[in-house]
Amino acid sequence: MAKIPIGVLGATGMVGQQYISLLKNHPWFEVRYVAASARSAGKSYKDATAGRVHFPGIAESAVGELIVADANDVSAASSAAKAGGCAFVFSALEMGKDEIRSLEDAYAAAGIPVVSNASAHRWTSDVPVLIAEVNHHHADIIPAQRAARGWDKGFIVVKPNCSIQSYTTPLYALMQKGYEVRRLIVTTLQAVSGAGYPGVPSLDMIDNIVPYIGGEEEKSEQEPLKILGSIEGGAFKNAAVPKIAAHCNRVPVCDGHTACVSVEFGGKKPSVEEVKKIWADFKSLPQELGLPFAPLRPIIVREENDRPQPRKDRDADKAMAVTVGRVRPCAVFDLRFVGLTHNTVRGAAGGGILNAELLKHKGYLG
Amino acid sequence: MAKIPIGVLGATGMVGQQYISLLKNHPWFEVRYVAASARSAGKSYKDATAGRVHFPGIAESAVGELIVADANDVSAASSAAKAGGCAFVFSALEMGKDEIRSLEDAYAAAGIPVVSNASAHRWTSDVPVLIAEVNHHHADIIPAQRAARGWDKGFIVVKPNCSIQSYTTPLYALMQKGYEVRRLIVTTLQAVSGAGYPGVPSLDMIDNIVPYIGGEEEKSEQEPLKILGSIEGGAFKNAAVPKIAAHCNRVPVCDGHTACVSVEFGGKKPSVEEVKKIWADFKSLPQELGLPFAPLRPIIVREENDRPQPRKDRDADKAMAVTVGRVRPCAVFDLRFVGLTHNTVRGAAGGGILNAELLKHKGYLG
Amino acid sequence: MAKIPIGVLGATGMVGQQYISLLKNHPWFEVRYVAASARSAGKSYKDATAGRVHFPGIAESAVGELIVADANDVSAASSAAKAGGCAFVFSALEMGKDEIRSLEDAYAAAGIPVVSNASAHRWTSDVPVLIAEVNHHHADIIPAQRAARGWDKGFIVVKPNCSIQSYTTPLYALMQKGYEVRRLIVTTLQAVSGAGYPGVPSLDMIDNIVPYIGGEEEKSEQEPLKILGSIEGGAFKNAAVPKIAAHCNRVPVCDGHTACVSVEFGGKKPSVEEVKKIWADFKSLPQELGLPFAPLRPIIVREENDRPQPRKDRDADKAMAVTVGRVRPCAVFDLRFVGLTHNTVRGAAGGGILNAELLKHKGYLG
Amino acid sequence: MAKIPIGVLGATGMVGQQYISLLKNHPWFEVRYVAASARSAGKSYKDATAGRVHFPGIAESAVGELIVADANDVSAASSAAKAGGCAFVFSALEMGKDEIRSLEDAYAAAGIPVVSNASAHRWTSDVPVLIAEVNHHHADIIPAQRAARGWDKGFIVVKPNCSIQSYTTPLYALMQKGYEVRRLIVTTLQAVSGAGYPGVPSLDMIDNIVPYIGGEEEKSEQEPLKILGSIEGGAFKNAAVPKIAAHCNRVPVCDGHTACVSVEFGGKKPSVEEVKKIWADFKSLPQELGLPFAPLRPIIVREENDRPQPRKDRDADKAMAVTVGRVRPCAVFDLRFVGLTHNTVRGAAGGGILNAELLKHKGYLG
Repeated sequence: MAKIPIGVLGATGMVGQQYISLLKNHPWFEVRYVAASARSAGKSYKDATAGRVHFPGIAESAVGELIVADANDVSAASSAAKAGGCAFVFSALEMGKDEIRSLEDAYAAAGIPVVSNASAHRWTSDVPVLIAEVNHHHADIIPAQRAARGWDKGFIVVKPNCSIQSYTTPLYALMQKGYEVRRLIVTTLQAVSGAGYPGVPSLDMIDNIVPYIGGEEEKSEQEPLKILGSIEGGAFKNAAVPKIAAHCNRVPVCDGHTACVSVEFGGKKPSVEEVKKIWADFKSLPQELGLPFAPLRPIIVREENDRPQPRKDRDADKAMAVTVGRVRPCAVFDLRFVGLTHNTVRGAAGGGILNAELLKHKGYLG
Repeated sequence: MAKIPIGVLGATGMVGQQYISLLKNHPWFEVRYVAASARSAGKSYKDATAGRVHFPGIAESAVGELIVADANDVSAASSAAKAGGCAFVFSALEMGKDEIRSLEDAYAAAGIPVVSNASAHRWTSDVPVLIAEVNHHHADIIPAQRAARGWDKGFIVVKPNCSIQSYTTPLYALMQKGYEVRRLIVTTLQAVSGAGYPGVPSLDMIDNIVPYIGGEEEKSEQEPLKILGSIEGGAFKNAAVPKIAAHCNRVPVCDGHTACVSVEFGGKKPSVEEVKKIWADFKSLPQELGLPFAPLRPIIVREENDRPQPRKDRDADKAMAVTVGRVRPCAVFDLRFVGLTHNTVRGAAGGGILNAELLKHKGYLG
Repeated sequence: MAKIPIGVLGATGMVGQQYISLLKNHPWFEVRYVAASARSAGKSYKDATAGRVHFPGIAESAVGELIVADANDVSAASSAAKAGGCAFVFSALEMGKDEIRSLEDAYAAAGIPVVSNASAHRWTSDVPVLIAEVNHHHADIIPAQRAARGWDKGFIVVKPNCSIQSYTTPLYALMQKGYEVRRLIVTTLQAVSGAGYPGVPSLDMIDNIVPYIGGEEEKSEQEPLKILGSIEGGAFKNAAVPKIAAHCNRVPVCDGHTACVSVEFGGKKPSVEEVKKIWADFKSLPQELGLPFAPLRPIIVREENDRPQPRKDRDADKAMAVTVGRVRPCAVFDLRFVGLTHNTVRGAAGGGILNAELLKHKGYLG
Repeated sequence: MAKIPIGVLGATGMVGQQYISLLKNHPWFEVRYVAASARSAGKSYKDATAGRVHFPGIAESAVGELIVADANDVSAASSAAKAGGCAFVFSALEMGKDEIRSLEDAYAAAGIPVVSNASAHRWTSDVPVLIAEVNHHHADIIPAQRAARGWDKGFIVVKPNCSIQSYTTPLYALMQKGYEVRRLIVTTLQAVSGAGYPGVPSLDMIDNIVPYIGGEEEKSEQEPLKILGSIEGGAFKNAAVPKIAAHCNRVPVCDGHTACVSVEFGGKKPSVEEVKKIWADFKSLPQELGLPFAPLRPIIVREENDRPQPRKDRDADKAMAVTVGRVRPCAVFDLRFVGLTHNTVRGAAGGGILNAELLKHKGYLG
């Protein structure tokens, strides 16, 4: 089977590079179009990233020889698309939110589906925020989205903030078994790669932690409600629960966001053993379909009392699984646990790729 | 005024060294007796610590020339006490809990008051667990303790675990103003010095965090209840509230324990502005008495949104203050904040010294 | 082709685990025998390593079900060997040097070849210290070694200290082209994994470096001379040059030893461009034979001015390549460069496996 | 005695803040004038540094209330000087080299002496690069400098790069005793504070080192030659020796530059014991004069085999001493040692203050 040619917007940035790196040898997709800022445009990808490559081997691959287009030049992508060289794009754009929103709209209007990592469209009422194992059915708003915008083949889907993966999927698994998750208090210990490059200064991360990440607590509290919400009249309606309070901290870890979570259930409460069994058994559509980037088990339960740990667990199952541990009763709420995910794979480019695989399966990518 | 001669048990260990270091130039106390394991006994303190000094200058001081006694040899301390060379001891013993308990009892029985850092006696019913600004009145159980044991001049007081300083004093300040603190969920990010030396392996602390510290969550949840409790019939009775749930994590920080706290009040709830004012204004007996190790303000309120940070705030006011920041409403409970204290000064040896100053003022040290 | 059954001595330790991990899916070898201390003996490998697994997945593999033998019980290995379950052993023993030497001798005497990671036999006159790309011909002392000891099938070969890989192969490549390397001054920045687990305390590695590693400078200076030496009368004779002075430092890096090297040549001196070409072109016997663990190119030359870096370069080519960079003239000697290798793969278990592959090819493993 | 009012240029930057912090309570100098970029001008120092204070307490001091001037407005400084509010300035300007050079010239021309931290003037032929204990006599070029420029009271002196303090003073001490230091090869492990703030990204400093610092090796090799040089005809003439080759690395340490040094002597060679004695005994003019920022002993010799270490030794003697350790013969050259200094105190602002104290004593500051 011929691979589907795809594009990456913001291809020279850190998340863009992560996409290029993860898509090497992808069984379905092949990067054939790369776009970045005007400064990089016209150079080979290899030259455009010289001296700032974060993932080994990306410049030496075939992508290294691609000529970088100007991401603001939608017509170039459109031409490439018409010539059969860009069936859809991953957006890893790094600009102001308004600019990203406009630009992603322009790509979609030009008939190019956008699978985005950017936060710009997360609160657009008819744009789904997808975690493939949780709300895959939200993708089915796409026809309504297209209709409302007058778009033919284009559409926009986004992935959520990297901080919420460590608890949203585990909580969803419990909800699916009939347990109401009413409230949670979560403290995250987040890796520096979440801030990009150069990102967090080393003077702030040697012998130190920073108990604040701008905008992160709001995202951590609100995005799960859209993901767990419903579609009503062509728009998303937030779930009423769980109520979430988040404390977000930056810690001296390269990759891997850890979350310490206390959960209060409404109605009946599962035992610790039930919770662990539900999590260990949890599978969803990506697993049933055997999507290439789907982890075999979306949730890995560790029994050791000192796990999960970022360096030991972030890479579990292609860095796409959530690892949970320390599952125990909470002295104030009902349940406590620690969740961990790889923030730049599962929480960024890998999650985007899995979303695209899901969309391909559902037929939205042609 | 002649200084009071004092002893340090476990003087060669890390906490013992911290005592020696902090007591250099103390206006009231002077280290004149040092005791450690049989292995060190008979050597000069300088020789006994050679190659494992953690605090600069301690071996070069007068203490360096003291001959180390065997900590198990209570009669040696007793002789020193009778000769006017050891009015009381700071205990930084590192042994099994039962051994420490017996040995501290033996010192007290021999007429030597014990101001302890060890956890062994924390749950002994008539031994006070002191935070000088919070429960200084608990020291007044000493006569009953002496009477019950048949001790004449000796007694035992202990300090709490290092993890609880970052939230217990702030919460007490609110309680004192009439606010009922009903429940709290707290996640700590604790420094490696809390585990002593060699303590936590570097392979666990480079690009990593460990979401578990043995026994720490239990201490963090239960010790505040004794501290906030009352004396009834010569024994301590735990406070009924607050109910506490703790998540304790080890992070790559040398010194300084950070706590992310969500608080639920019973009855009326203070505004964020009231909370900050209560904390900024809080003073207690150690401040009124002007005790040498008392911070001018026990609670420092920072307004920047990214503070407190371990490296920037742990040394505030002789490393004896609690620094709080990010005071804001909680999306689930009522109030959220971040608290930080220096775990080996305020949370260990410095706290012990302040306790001794308080006991001296109250007349229990003769 | 049926795989060769092999054993790992010291299998539960960190290097032993590394062997188990790297040998998973090895095309020639299959771990069928594991031995460790008496404490672990009799348990399944999974149980024996529970709670101290450093490499994900090793306990879940088939090896996890093997029953751990007592490493001191050579007869057990001998029985396994006779039953066709242990053709040779990798030694990752962690004991006193004299004990290791005796025990490795006993295995060899029992007819079991020993490919060792331990330093015990490095200065035994007829035991080769192998870097497969450098002195593969030193393996040919094995018949003389066997003859001298009266051993039939058994023999002992060892690998060098992990600190020397980053400069010995590059220097050998230059020597092979006729350049005499007369003197070098080398400063290493070594990863903490080199000290095993628990190894270096985190209090020494947060905001700190330690400019000393016991015994490491001597090894770094002397072992290359044996490796570059000749065989005379059934024993190794050290090379006369290069004269080496080493400064060895421990730095807060998990894996990857970096060496800053200044080289003085005797006779004619290569230009920087020649040096880079020699290194980039260098191949040796393992490459010609296409041994499974041989890197495609033993030396990778990077042109960026800030490379090699441990986190970016240590995993190059299965973590088996030496990455060099900053190749430039030296203001005092002739040439300067920075070399980097993965200390626990190329510098330990991976190097041992490559040595075994070489020995298999040469016919010494039956 | 009334304190001398002084100014700080670039006062809001990291080095500028370090000056403000160190000068608090200085017995001779008092900061009365602060200047920074146009962006900060007109604000109080407290407001201008809000949210980016690196040194606790600087905003709360009297300096916090000073109104920041525009550093480009020399006439403002001139007016302040005439009004008795700015006898000289410390320059911690952060701009392009040419701009700094011009601006420092302008201040000097306006009659305001400039004691600079910037590198801009280091290679100006008649500007001394001062290490107070080494080349204090170089200050005596000031009359010639003034004459050549037509300056009345103004002049410019600079301090060297922070990387060279760890070896230049020890080597000078040996040279002063008649030993010729002919060549040295030095590898530095430099702290991130040397790169300022934000400086080095944390992604480069977690589980990593970077074997390159732009321009640092050149400075490390050449600046000592000017410092050890002579004055001929109103200009500095470099010393012919030592020939220096430097490898400069960035390591995950906040403060404290470590240097691993191999030294070759010409002529007679001192024994290790002689070297240690010369260093332990070394004193120079600042010590004789008892200048406030002069360390009691400029060189501290440690006998432990694992010292100096940045976290344990950088603060020795007000962070103004060089700590040396591991003094031993070199297997290639004659002598090896490890030197350490605090790069932002001794190597930056503290060194500048000591230079000013020296200049005051010599009468150049009026």
